[in-house]
Formats: sequence, structure tokens, C-alpha cells
Amino acid sequence: MPSYKAPLRDYRFILNEVLNVQNYANLAGFADATPDTIDAILDGAAQLAEEVLQPLNLSGDQEGCTRHPDGSVTTPKGFKDAYKLFTDGGWGALTSDPDFGGQGMPAVLGSCFSEIVSAANMAFVMYPGLSHGAYSAIHVHGTDEQRQTYLPKIVEGVWTGTMNLTEPNCGTDLGLMRTRAEPQADGSYKISGTKIFISAGEHDMSENIIHLVLAKISGPDTPAGIKGVSLFIVPKFMVEKDGSLGARNGVSCGSIEHKMGIHGNATCVLNYDGATGFLIGEAHKGMRAMFTMMNEARLGVAIQGLSQSEVAYQNAVNYAKDRLQGRSLTGPKFPEKPADPIIVHPDIRRVLMNIKAFNEGARALMLWTSLHGDLAHKSDDAKARELGEDVMGILTPVLKGYLTDKGYANATDAQQVYGGHGYIAEWGAEQFVRDARIAMIYEGANGIQALDLVGRKLASNGGRAIFAWFKIVDDAIAAGGDETVKPFIDGLTTVRKQLEEATTWLMNNGLSNPDNAGAGSMDYLYLFGLCGLAFSWTEMAKVAAAKAGADAFYANKLTTGRYFIERMLPDAAAHLAKLKTGAAPLMALDMEAF
Amino acid sequence: MPSYKAPLRDYRFILNEVLNVQNYANLAGFADATPDTIDAILDGAAQLAEEVLQPLNLSGDQEGCTRHPDGSVTTPKGFKDAYKLFTDGGWGALTSDPDFGGQGMPAVLGSCFSEIVSAANMAFVMYPGLSHGAYSAIHVHGTDEQRQTYLPKIVEGVWTGTMNLTEPNCGTDLGLMRTRAEPQADGSYKISGTKIFISAGEHDMSENIIHLVLAKISGPDTPAGIKGVSLFIVPKFMVEKDGSLGARNGVSCGSIEHKMGIHGNATCVLNYDGATGFLIGEAHKGMRAMFTMMNEARLGVAIQGLSQSEVAYQNAVNYAKDRLQGRSLTGPKFPEKPADPIIVHPDIRRVLMNIKAFNEGARALMLWTSLHGDLAHKSDDAKARELGEDVMGILTPVLKGYLTDKGYANATDAQQVYGGHGYIAEWGAEQFVRDARIAMIYEGANGIQALDLVGRKLASNGGRAIFAWFKIVDDAIAAGGDETVKPFIDGLTTVRKQLEEATTWLMNNGLSNPDNAGAGSMDYLYLFGLCGLAFSWTEMAKVAAAKAGADAFYANKLTTGRYFIERMLPDAAAHLAKLKTGAAPLMALDMEAF
Repeated sequence: MPSYKAPLRDYRFILNEVLNVQNYANLAGFADATPDTIDAILDGAAQLAEEVLQPLNLSGDQEGCTRHPDGSVTTPKGFKDAYKLFTDGGWGALTSDPDFGGQGMPAVLGSCFSEIVSAANMAFVMYPGLSHGAYSAIHVHGTDEQRQTYLPKIVEGVWTGTMNLTEPNCGTDLGLMRTRAEPQADGSYKISGTKIFISAGEHDMSENIIHLVLAKISGPDTPAGIKGVSLFIVPKFMVEKDGSLGARNGVSCGSIEHKMGIHGNATCVLNYDGATGFLIGEAHKGMRAMFTMMNEARLGVAIQGLSQSEVAYQNAVNYAKDRLQGRSLTGPKFPEKPADPIIVHPDIRRVLMNIKAFNEGARALMLWTSLHGDLAHKSDDAKARELGEDVMGILTPVLKGYLTDKGYANATDAQQVYGGHGYIAEWGAEQFVRDARIAMIYEGANGIQALDLVGRKLASNGGRAIFAWFKIVDDAIAAGGDETVKPFIDGLTTVRKQLEEATTWLMNNGLSNPDNAGAGSMDYLYLFGLCGLAFSWTEMAKVAAAKAGADAFYANKLTTGRYFIERMLPDAAAHLAKLKTGAAPLMALDMEAF
Repeated sequence: MPSYKAPLRDYRFILNEVLNVQNYANLAGFADATPDTIDAILDGAAQLAEEVLQPLNLSGDQEGCTRHPDGSVTTPKGFKDAYKLFTDGGWGALTSDPDFGGQGMPAVLGSCFSEIVSAANMAFVMYPGLSHGAYSAIHVHGTDEQRQTYLPKIVEGVWTGTMNLTEPNCGTDLGLMRTRAEPQADGSYKISGTKIFISAGEHDMSENIIHLVLAKISGPDTPAGIKGVSLFIVPKFMVEKDGSLGARNGVSCGSIEHKMGIHGNATCVLNYDGATGFLIGEAHKGMRAMFTMMNEARLGVAIQGLSQSEVAYQNAVNYAKDRLQGRSLTGPKFPEKPADPIIVHPDIRRVLMNIKAFNEGARALMLWTSLHGDLAHKSDDAKARELGEDVMGILTPVLKGYLTDKGYANATDAQQVYGGHGYIAEWGAEQFVRDARIAMIYEGANGIQALDLVGRKLASNGGRAIFAWFKIVDDAIAAGGDETVKPFIDGLTTVRKQLEEATTWLMNNGLSNPDNAGAGSMDYLYLFGLCGLAFSWTEMAKVAAAKAGADAFYANKLTTGRYFIERMLPDAAAHLAKLKTGAAPLMALDMEAF
């Protein structure tokens, strides 16, 4: 049976020793995040994940969700009780605004929590995860009345939320949207249309569901295309003045999708038949409202990729230590056993080291980026807020694309460690692959992340964010280190040059022919990801080198990091070479020749 | 709904124009394989695949196989009728020995057929595919009586076959085998034990099932470990002297596995409870008997990888031409439509070109290798037979590892083209991924292929096979070509040098520390695969360049090949760099530190 242990030592190392979060006590929430509190939160999260959520992961996948003829949806056995434990523990409130019942903890701590619980049960965690998306939309764009009406219940978890963007004919290109909002005399709207792929769209775990819905207001004033899209709040049950629940609104679940993975989450077709909705934010500015939530949501998906990589790794390690097949190429290592455990074989090691070195580097980069999210929102210093926004802006597509692509590839490699057993459902390895797969697609498919990176984030504010990134890397290089740190500095220096060469190539060739930017976008994203991990490994190596005698943890950290530099960074040169071939090789063939 | 069209023009191009199979009329079966016959066979295969097998692929996945309380197994709706059409058409007999009812066609043509039908319905084709494995074992190692008893019925398809190797505690390391064979007075054996992961182990499509089973003969003469394994024929129903079916034998299906894909094929746990078995080949030489079939079986799995890459590609192309989202980066290409089809976007092109350039290069290399299999078995010339064996020997692990790893990666990339729809079962894209996944695992997991390549095939006969390969490549380079061919020659020259450098490194460092060979084995396999495709693209480019004016087919072939050289070959340098880091980075960490 699959299992999971939260990598608590790794979080403490990154938070307390690498990022030194205690230095940010001037930011809201950080003063409360003392090392003791962080420990207590991480321990509690680990217990919830290991004892409540993980044991429901395989059974939730096998049972899936059931839609009944009346349109109601039942979640897998145990999910409802687990959700009660989740909300009773206040976990949905961890990073939410104290004004609405939240605990106001830093986002960087919320990111640790997200990885832990997603690793244990990704399908389950999407229910409260989507609630947090709805929370953010209402928190940032809602009126005071809307915030008072919806936020306390969502933060408490007795209501959940959803995000409704996709329609059968439009996903990436939301300008093609057909869902309509008819203005009513009382200021509300009647929403009509069909939304698809709505995660957590209908279920049995909460008293109400608050749908955030993109639609176009009917009428001559609505601009065509993407500029005419507005955002609406559509509650499943109407909310009365006193906060009690009223009539059932005109939104219903038409079907649930049969899909590759995340079977424990109900992916719904939602039919809006003149449902009552309330405009949130300005009319026709719905996309702007969505964009403010997008970095946070995309970082959340990046964390899902990492989470599946981590749980897949842990289980593959357990199998590789347990499974006896063959003998070490250099002679028996366990002569008293009928065969050696397969972890003695170099190619098994290669797979495990690839994943381990990725997970630890990606975790540090992801938390470093989350910390910049805190700075962007909470710093008193305008320069720090700007830097925080720039880092979040440029690293978000990188993390979303790189961590989810690698998360899936790593889950696949981990599955391979099991041989034939990896293909069999009861071992759980194939579920990690199927669950990880969705993270590459939703919240903007990874190709869209790459376009966002090269088409938008590179150029915005005259390239301020990418220059800030190079400055950060240059500072890390300039700070230097001893002989132990030198290989890391050298690797980072090399990949930094490659990233700069790629950036310059895109700037020189992407304007004259935008297809050149598109053609190189995914290789650029991967190259950036490698540079990002080289940076986070360098920062970790500096700390570990200084403490290497203290504890095997630090020596192992250095060994793992050196593996990344030696065996994983060589991919950067291939990405650069491909990028520099430009658009011609891709666009040369006539459409009919495919 | 997913669909499939056999790439007939591509087969004709490779068989008739690149490999010039008509030049091999001196080999048995080739004289009958005239261009007209080849056309008729390919057309018939395409019709079977497109009209009978492909329409059952999605439904077969969704329904799966059912085991009944009495141990019998029902295949998905339509499979039984399709199997009758398959056998009525004589397709199971295509490459079999005419002495036993076969058509004796060349293996290279059989490989075309395998790709076509596997692309249409991989789970279905495994039933006759496993029969062919049993056919080969009996054909090569059986007594005359065994051949007369079993082969005609298997070739006709009224009986099917299976291969029984794996047990709960042993897969790769068959020396740990526990299944026992008790010698009986009449010369037969009583077989007892449990075999798992038996594809096509029990079903409702044939009158009898002939199990080929590895077991250890009980008694003091049986050597320990892998050297004490023998091979047995165990029929489901005993065969009487007159060929009629007698009593039910003591083998039964204990359960069928719930697995990630190939749901249409029954993967069985088979319980042998004193079942009557007949030794085939020599006692204790069962592994040798298995090995003679292994190249053929592994090439068959390589073809499965290619087949899923091809069908995934075709469907992604259809989707990319159909789906309207956004506008080309260089301005609208279909201004009359509400949006452009997504095939205008460079990153979609990148995915499709990656798969197309792989499929066409891999198909040519696979058929070239198959032709060498024909030479190995059928040539009058001892040198040609030796070369054929060397090529089959060294290319088989390369093709099995590279084509199945890429087949899965390509199916995943093709799925990405669909966005959210790629994750939904009804579109079929996710099935190709799940089905493709098994090919990386069975018939020797790909890590084992890499070990076979560097640990056995490189060194055998003093490196004769690898030197033969370099000679083949050098001849292709020396033959040269015009300006159109030059980029291919240049690419091939570069990757050939990289492969030679890797080979030399392994020879210099693998003997002193075998872990160095193991650590670099998978990178070496990939590097070899890239060299193989560069070779096959060069050979195709020579033909296409000479006819480039004749037909858009040839110009498109050159464009696709140039994409491979420019955008895919750069990975070779990264594999070389990783290989040359040796075992140290992988083995440095203590087992406990994982």
C-alpha cells in the first residue's frame, strides 16, 4: 500500500536556515510565525496528511465521484468526514485574512501546507483549494457587502467555491465565450450558459457552493471578445439577508467527466439556466479580476506537480529498498539475502537521484518565490513590493510549467522502478502519474505558460523582471563560497550565461518574427527552470557547506545538489541549441502535410 | 471520436524505395513479396485495422475484461468477432512457416502489419501477438511431434498462446523462481506454482490456450538459480492423439489485474495446481529457449511504442486542425473564422513535428532492423547472416528502450495538444498514454534493455556488433550526397562521433567499475537511438533528395528530416555529458539517505 511522510526536516531547513523567514517579522503575519508556531503547523499538517488524507487517496481514486439522477454528487467514502476534520482544524483559514476569520499566516507557510496535503491526496485537496480561489476573487474584487456575505463562511469551510471559465468551445481563448448575463432591474443578473471542466463543481461536503463565473453581459455596451467578459458570483443556494440559505439557484450539474485521474474530485459540466448572479468588480473587467488570482492559482498547480513527484519518489524508494532482484554489478551487497534490493543498481539510483535532486531544488525555489509573494503583498517598502511582484510574475509561469512537466515525468520514472507492479492499480504508482498529468493542463496549459513567459513577462516594464532575476543570480554568484560551494557557483554561472544568451536571442529575433518567440518558448521555460534550480541549490549549498560537519543531513544535501549540477544541468545546452534554431524548422511544413 | 489511418505511403516508401526489398528475392518468402503482394497485404491490414480493430479500441478500454466466479474470462464486446475476422483473414499466419500453414512472408512485412494493427488496438493485438511468441518457442525448440501437435492450430488461430515467466517474487531475476515441475513416469511433468502478469492468460476467443511456462524441475540434479530453469508446454485443454481436445488441465485464472491501461487484454494470475506439462528443449536450458525468442518479442514491443506514438499523433493533428482558439502570432491566418486552428501556433507545431520526425525516422530504423532479422534467418551467405544477427542483437535493446520511452512521451505530448479535452476519456488521447506506458515495462523493463546493451551486446564477440554498426554508419556518410543531403550527413557525423566517444568511455571505465557502465547505460541507449534515427533519416533523405521534384511527399520528407537534425539531435550532447560523469554522483549517497 502506498504511504506518505511529509518532508518536515526539508521545510525547516529551507524556511529557517535558507530563507530565514524570522528576518521578516515586520511583515503582517510573520511575527506570529515563530519557529515554534511553524513547527506546530507543519506537524499538524503532516498528521492530517499522513493519517487522514493519504489513506483515502487510493480508495478515492478507485471509487470516484457519483452523480445521481437529481444532479447531486457524492464524493468517495471518507471524503466528507475528512473534510470536516480539515475545516475543524482550521486548515482552510491558514493564510486567510483575520478580518474574515483567517489566521493570516504567511503565504510561504501556506505553500508548505499545500505541498504536504496535495502529496497525500491531490483530488481531495482540490475542494478546499478551489474555495481559496473563490475567496481570493471576492477578497480582492468584492464589495464590502460581498466580502461580509461570503468570506467568513468560505474561510470557515462550511461553504466551498469554484472557478468557472471554460466552455465547450473555449478554454485558452476566452474571447469566444458564449455564457450570457442578462441585467435585471434589481441590479442582479440572470446567467445562462454551459461551463465545463469545473473542479469541485458539485459535491456533498459543504452547505453551499459559491461559483465564480465568467460571462458576457447582454447588450450593446459589451465590447466584443475578451474585453467584454465580466465576473459574477453565483451561489448554489441564495443567501438571505440574515446569512441563512434560501432558494436553490438555477445552476445544476449536468454530468461529471470520466477522466484520466483525480477521480476523487468531481469535474462537472455546470448548466446555468437563468441563475441569479452578482457582478463582482467592474463590468467587462472580468479578465483583470481573474488575472489577479492567476499567479497564486498557478503557483498552487506548480506545487501539485512537486507534490506528486515527492510522494511518487517516497514510494519508489520504499519499493527499491524492499524488492530483491539480482545482484549489484560490483558484487553482492546483501549476501545473506537471496538477492540484493534493487536500490543497489545504478540505473535505479539514477532515477531516484533525478527525482530527489529535482524535488529538493524545486521545493526551495518554490518557497523562495512564495516568500516574494508575501513581500509583494505585505512589505512596507515600495521597492521590495516591486521586486516581489517581479519575481512572482516571472517565476510563476516557470514554476507552473517546469514543476508540473517534471512532476509528471518523475512520477512516470518512479513508476518504472516497480517494474510490472508499477502498472497495477493496487500499488498506487500509476495513480500518481494519472493525477500528476492534469497539472500540466489546467490553469493554463504549459504551452500557454511558456507564451506568457516569453510574450508577456519578459517584455513587461522594459524587462524589469528578467533584469531583476539576473541581478539576484549575479549576487548569489558574487557572494561566492568555499571549495564545497564552488561547483555550485560554476554550474550556476554556466546556466546563467545560457539563459542570458537565450534571452538576448529572443529579444533580437522575437520582435521581427513573433513565431521565433513562440517556437523557443518551451525550451526557454525549461532553461529558466534549470537556472532557477541551480540558484536554489547554490543557496542551499552555502548553508549546508557551513554546517557540513554537524549532521549527515547537510552532507547529503550537498551530495544531492552536486548530482543536480553534474547530471541534470547538461540539459540546458540542448534547450539553448534548440531555441536558437528559431521558427523555420517548425513552420516549414504545410498544414496539409501533417 | 479517435480514428486511425495506416500510413501506407510511408511503408511503401521505406520498403520499396529505401530498403529496396525486391533486391532480396533470393531469401525465402521475399520472392512472393512482390510490390503488388505487398500492396495487397498493406491494404488488407489497413482495412482490418481501420474498420474492425480501431472502432473497438475505446470501448474495449472502457469495458475491460471480466473474470467470472468459475475462472473464465470474457473479453470486451466485439473482440471475439474481431478475432474471428482476424483469423479468417489468415493474419496470424502472415509470417509463419508454410510447413505449418503459414504464409512465410518476410519479417519486415510482418513488422509493418504489427505497427498497423497495434496502432488500431494494442490490447486486442496482444492476443495473437502472444500466440506468435508461443509459436516461435515451439517452432524453434519443440520436437517434431510437438510442432505437429501445436503449430498448425496456433498458426490458424483456433488456439492461442501465452508466455509465463513472472512470479510474485521474481520478474527480472528469474533465478528466484519457485514454480516446480515434478517428473512423471510417462515423461511428462506436474507443474505447480503461481505466475503473474500473464497477458492473454485466459479469454473467450479461442478453443484452447497453449501456455509456455518456465519452472524448475524438482530433484537434486537441478542447478540453483537461473541455470536450473526449464521451459514447458502446458495446454489449457489436453490434446488427444487425434488432435481433439481432452480434459481440462490443472491451470486456472485466479484473478485479472486492475491496471493502468490495455484494459482490453486480460492480464492474469495463473495458478498451476499439478498441471500436466511437457518439457520443451533441454532440461535446465529454459532461459536459452527464451532468449532465442527475445529479440523478436522485444522488437514487437518496440513496434507497440511506435504504434501508440503514430495513432496519438494522427489524432492530435486532427484536433489541432479542427480546434479554433486564438490567433496566429503573426496575424490571423483564417480571418473568416472566429479564431485560427491551433496548428498555426509554433508550440503546437513543435509538439507535432517532434512526434512526426520521430515516427518516420523510427519506422525506417525499425523496418531496416527487421530486414536484418530476415537476413539473419534466411540468407544463404554466412557473412550476411552474421551481420543480420549482429544488427538485430545490438539494435533490439535500443529500439525497445528508445521507441517505447519516446512512444509514451509522444503520446503524452499529443495529449497536451487537446488541452483539457486530452484528460477526458471520450477523446481517446489519454488511453494512448496509458496503453503506451506498459511497453516501457514488459519484455524487460527499459533499464534492463540498457544493461543488456552495455553489459552484453557491446562486449559480445569482441565488440563485433558495435563495430559493424559504426561501419554501416561510416558507409552511409562516405556515400555522401548533394547539398540537400549534406545537413543529414553532417548531423549523422556529429552524433556518430558522440556515440563513439561514449562507447570508448564505457570500454575504458566500465571494466574497472561496472557501476560506471550501469550509470551511463540509459544515456548510452538514448544516444544510440538518436544515432540510429540520424542514420535512417540520412538514408531516407538520399532517396527523397533524388526525387524531390516529383511529388510533395519527398519535399515534406526532407523538411521533416531536417527538423529531426536541427531540433532533436542536440539532445545527444547532453546524454554524452551525463554518461561521462560516471557512477560517482549516483552512488555517493548512503541507502538510508534516500
